[in-house]
Amino acid sequence: MATATDRIRAAKAASSSIGLANTHVKNAVLRKIAELLPERNAEILAGNAKDMERAAAEGMSVGLQDRLRLDAARIHGLAKAVLEVAELPDPVGDVIRGRTLPNGLHLQQVRVPFGVIGAIYEARPNVTVDIAALAIKSGNASVLRGGTAAEHSNRALVQVLQDALELCGVDRNSVQSVDEFGRPGAQEMMQAVGLIDVLIPRGGHSLIQTVLNESKVPVIETGEGVVHVFIDATARADWAVEIMLNSKTQKIGACNAAETMLVHQDAYDRVMPALVEALQSNKVTLHGDERTQAAFSNIVPATEHDWATEYLAMDLAIKTVSSLDEALAHIAKYSTKHTEVIVTEDYSNAERFINEVDAAAVIVNASSRFTDGGEFGFGAEVGISTQKLHSRGPMGLPELTSTKWIVRGNGHVRA
Amino acid sequence: MATATDRIRAAKAASSSIGLANTHVKNAVLRKIAELLPERNAEILAGNAKDMERAAAEGMSVGLQDRLRLDAARIHGLAKAVLEVAELPDPVGDVIRGRTLPNGLHLQQVRVPFGVIGAIYEARPNVTVDIAALAIKSGNASVLRGGTAAEHSNRALVQVLQDALELCGVDRNSVQSVDEFGRPGAQEMMQAVGLIDVLIPRGGHSLIQTVLNESKVPVIETGEGVVHVFIDATARADWAVEIMLNSKTQKIGACNAAETMLVHQDAYDRVMPALVEALQSNKVTLHGDERTQAAFSNIVPATEHDWATEYLAMDLAIKTVSSLDEALAHIAKYSTKHTEVIVTEDYSNAERFINEVDAAAVIVNASSRFTDGGEFGFGAEVGISTQKLHSRGPMGLPELTSTKWIVRGNGHVRA
Repeated sequence: MATATDRIRAAKAASSSIGLANTHVKNAVLRKIAELLPERNAEILAGNAKDMERAAAEGMSVGLQDRLRLDAARIHGLAKAVLEVAELPDPVGDVIRGRTLPNGLHLQQVRVPFGVIGAIYEARPNVTVDIAALAIKSGNASVLRGGTAAEHSNRALVQVLQDALELCGVDRNSVQSVDEFGRPGAQEMMQAVGLIDVLIPRGGHSLIQTVLNESKVPVIETGEGVVHVFIDATARADWAVEIMLNSKTQKIGACNAAETMLVHQDAYDRVMPALVEALQSNKVTLHGDERTQAAFSNIVPATEHDWATEYLAMDLAIKTVSSLDEALAHIAKYSTKHTEVIVTEDYSNAERFINEVDAAAVIVNASSRFTDGGEFGFGAEVGISTQKLHSRGPMGLPELTSTKWIVRGNGHVRA
Repeated sequence: MATATDRIRAAKAASSSIGLANTHVKNAVLRKIAELLPERNAEILAGNAKDMERAAAEGMSVGLQDRLRLDAARIHGLAKAVLEVAELPDPVGDVIRGRTLPNGLHLQQVRVPFGVIGAIYEARPNVTVDIAALAIKSGNASVLRGGTAAEHSNRALVQVLQDALELCGVDRNSVQSVDEFGRPGAQEMMQAVGLIDVLIPRGGHSLIQTVLNESKVPVIETGEGVVHVFIDATARADWAVEIMLNSKTQKIGACNAAETMLVHQDAYDRVMPALVEALQSNKVTLHGDERTQAAFSNIVPATEHDWATEYLAMDLAIKTVSSLDEALAHIAKYSTKHTEVIVTEDYSNAERFINEVDAAAVIVNASSRFTDGGEFGFGAEVGISTQKLHSRGPMGLPELTSTKWIVRGNGHVRA
């Protein structure tokens, strides 16, 4: 029987097939996937039914069951998303820099696929198709580990993906799943130095930390966001309310949703009544510092734990600060360096916030929810990198590529 | 007494001081370093004398002792190199991309310092000054581990670097050394997640592998090069000789020096006599396959070991191949993905070599020695990355930076 490492080796061996495929071929594969997904509804839904049955038997939460569930409409949605990837520009072959050196050598830096991308994520079958489509478009083979809970759904989906590759003349091993090997399969991925070029974990805190700690393969860290909105002394009250409400409630499960509000003491009396009213009437549970507990009703006392928590829920921590410096210090201590927002009318404070906050995105007078590949105009989003190496912030298709230097000479040697 | 981690924390705390310093201030620091280095010759040479004494007592090889030795002329050379870094453009603040989104949000992606760069290298005091200068120019604090053998030299040099920072109003802790803590100091660096942003190992195979295996901090892998030159069937004989000789002998200790020559069987009779004559008369020891052993004298039999060896010496492995495919397969198996060269007059083979070889640099009809930051026009070279993430190939100052997205709005919220 094949091992997880056999699958990883198969992806590596196939990587030149997908890597050398031109844009027409890769788009044909994507369109074939979009065509096959609804055609093979029955087989996909049968796999999904097995996973749903086990999930129910094992008492999986309603929310997680919902993420796991597929139906005809969702499969249609997956197909549509794959067609959107087909529409995006192909990053491979882009000439990033180029010049003729003084000695006449022709130098070019071009985008090339990484080779093999590994993805470790939680039981969400949609991510299987999503990541595979992005990998195909960027010329990469992929090794997918989507969790044992989605094993049968993913197996059916990967069959479709592989059949589409083969029908278009690309090595079907360009997409591989290691779900059936359980946790040891994920561990083999993390040890696959020289086979997997980059590993992308997508999921919650503990998944990401495990991969960061255990992987010998380079990792792109995505997603965790303890996002702050700082309401400065001079903040416009209407913007403060709209931006805070949107940052917190527009999509509570998103990594760019706000988790903590910092309020300058000089803005407190002017803006807090409207802020508290707006947030509470939108069913946000407020975890406040002492001043906020004293001034308003229904405030849960905030503890040290709250400052470091990514709630991903209708909860918001609130802290009063006496200065921009105190706000910057709080952010430096608790930020996950994802997105940080200031609402201010003070020019110098806006500039200091932009320069001094260390985060993937720093936003002035707008919602934290704008840190997003779609909003930035990337078309597709691989994830939002919270690390500093390679790519920081929303990642599009070009972030799934590496580069190669090409030098063309005529017998040139170094003096 | 301070621990290595105390030093790392001090660098982290100082990183905003150097990170927010403008170009004038950073250049003033660099010029001050260049001024102080020769002025404080006595103190630096006294430290170096202690290291040299221990090196002699411990029987360090003559070559390594030479790398460790400082004298007035070498200190002058260090100062000159620092002044050259001052002349380079400052990458920090470069706007890489920018646009106004359809909703009126102003979006910019700008270069920012990483924060804290760690460097682990072998007993070469010049690297201490070199890396610190590049870090200062790119707005990064640095933590240096240059090996116990260079401890006293590095301590004296770091004193000079720190004094220059302080004299220019920058936190002197922006440069830190952990040499005095020995190997445990290096290990604390590799565990310093959240304090050190990127770790750059510079040195031999075992140093780099140790850092890659043990570091929890993101690493930029540099330097190892098992570089191949493929003499194709149609190669011009004169170019083959010049390029091979230059690739092998121009600087044998460089990572971009050639280690293996692959010769197409159809070029063998035409080009090998001149190649062997040129290489042997330049004192290159040839490790040849059976055909080469049979055809020429003074050929050392090549073994499997030779194909994987970075000699960094006057040695060259030689293998005959029957086709471009066999050359590509050999390179795929043994290449360290640094630099690969083809000498050919065949257009399609040149294009296939460029597209199919997976390496930081692929060179047609020119010496492998051109993979170099100086040759590429970068001004200064941080190292040559052999990994695919973040930066691949010669790294200049911009490669020592990350990026930050800046979003400016006017009360924007997401619909």
